[in-house]
Amino acid sequence: MYFCTYNYKEVEEVGILDDSKTRVISLNEILINLNYEKVSSMNDFIDKYDENTIIQLKRNLKENKFTYLSLDDIKLCAPIPYPKRNIICLGKNYIDHANEIAGLPGADNEIPRFPIYFSKLAFPAIGQNDIILNHKIITDKIDYEVELAIIIGKDGINIKKENVEEYIFGYTIINDISARNLQRKHSQWFRGKSLETFCPMGPYIVCKSQIPFPVELDIKCSINGELRQNSNTRNLIFDISYIISDLSKGMKLKKGDIIITGTPAGVGLGFKPYKMLHSGDVIESYIEKIGTLINYIE
Amino acid sequence: MYFCTYNYKEVEEVGILDDSKTRVISLNEILINLNYEKVSSMNDFIDKYDENTIIQLKRNLKENKFTYLSLDDIKLCAPIPYPKRNIICLGKNYIDHANEIAGLPGADNEIPRFPIYFSKLAFPAIGQNDIILNHKIITDKIDYEVELAIIIGKDGINIKKENVEEYIFGYTIINDISARNLQRKHSQWFRGKSLETFCPMGPYIVCKSQIPFPVELDIKCSINGELRQNSNTRNLIFDISYIISDLSKGMKLKKGDIIITGTPAGVGLGFKPYKMLHSGDVIESYIEKIGTLINYIE
Repeated sequence: MYFCTYNYKEVEEVGILDDSKTRVISLNEILINLNYEKVSSMNDFIDKYDENTIIQLKRNLKENKFTYLSLDDIKLCAPIPYPKRNIICLGKNYIDHANEIAGLPGADNEIPRFPIYFSKLAFPAIGQNDIILNHKIITDKIDYEVELAIIIGKDGINIKKENVEEYIFGYTIINDISARNLQRKHSQWFRGKSLETFCPMGPYIVCKSQIPFPVELDIKCSINGELRQNSNTRNLIFDISYIISDLSKGMKLKKGDIIITGTPAGVGLGFKPYKMLHSGDVIESYIEKIGTLINYIE
Repeated sequence: MYFCTYNYKEVEEVGILDDSKTRVISLNEILINLNYEKVSSMNDFIDKYDENTIIQLKRNLKENKFTYLSLDDIKLCAPIPYPKRNIICLGKNYIDHANEIAGLPGADNEIPRFPIYFSKLAFPAIGQNDIILNHKIITDKIDYEVELAIIIGKDGINIKKENVEEYIFGYTIINDISARNLQRKHSQWFRGKSLETFCPMGPYIVCKSQIPFPVELDIKCSINGELRQNSNTRNLIFDISYIISDLSKGMKLKKGDIIITGTPAGVGLGFKPYKMLHSGDVIESYIEKIGTLINYIE
């Protein structure tokens, strides 16, 4: 089951995609049909949802006729445009990426022995076909980082590795757009990761039941059609079970939290000379079984 | 004018303190008297407030008799128990603190040439007399950092230095409790700063009109009565005007955002041997004209 947030006639709604992924149906229409309470946003849905809801939704979708809207008639937004807390990010979580940036100014040469966590503001996150501002006044070094994003579906603290999957709601794609000069200038990475529009997310959230666990999905990023990043999430240094269990030690993860799991080799900073993003560039962020998120540089 | 969030008979309310700071009055009682809409939280008040509201509140307080509650009968909570976004923090923003940690494992020796920004989860933040959990399973190196916190009162992007004060709602105290082993283990600082209860805040928010700008206030921290940190906010390397103007370049600051401005010398990590916090320790975080925030280690 694929969930999205879309704008139709100036109203933002949560939707479910049909199997062809060319049409969308209002989640509230199905919820009303099920005598469930309506939801005001994806966050609201994740707050109220439990595993049983998904089963009911699937059954109801098969048994009834609903109004479908073509994707051509709606605007896809970020699935969670206003995350309740900052995005939690992992740095250097693919060996080939850790290697490609080793020795660069401000980076050390080590493969991390422990996860590197930082956070990123996304308020709002942007969606399919949206434009990333170039912020020319403060940066000329905008880079891309395609990443698998995990959406938390259940509050938890001190989560055991073997129970991690039950705390997940689903998965989506985030491109962790980064101003490399600010990342270095301010030592800690938060600032260079948090400019307006620097968090494209989507196009949909894929329900966890759709993706076998452990998650092994091809992950790619192309710039203007040129394939730059090409790996598989099985290559994560710290995998999803490790990350969620580790992060939740002493720190409660909450419904709707978003964790991005790091990026593979092939970022602009990894090339000699650098291949930074420029006005008009098209970024295609792809993850198998999720889809392709397309964005443009202003 | 001093604002607080308090719990009385199981209900959380926003309050205003009287001049003696021994009694509190429900903000909603005054708002109703003014025919204004009630507010559900401090965040809600900051969302709705403008400069004129404060003037009206002051006048109304003088002209009318309201019900006062003694501080002994209420529980003071963090003024903003659930910040809308992570707390934005500055690292190494006093020269004497940068010097005391220079050369320690994982720290460089430099006085920052640019601000070091990172973020901290506080969800919820804790308040006056609340207990900081010791998280013994993952840390034995809990440290204190008293800091002046700025509460943003108006949305703004690319704010000019000379206009910064108009974007401020007020000030409070935050102790940026830190697990030093996790801060180092995970390279970036977010993780070691974000454990449950690691964000004591309060006791009140002081309205900006109460504090001359630029802000020059004595700032101190005592552990079990022993004075450890003792400075003045005039010693900030990057002052409030610089920080807010710089942070807002390309990144919109929002009403209710909280920025903490760094800690002076005297943290536990600065002593040889280290003076980390232990069970039963009492932390008194003091800032002139704001008050004293008292917390205990579990």
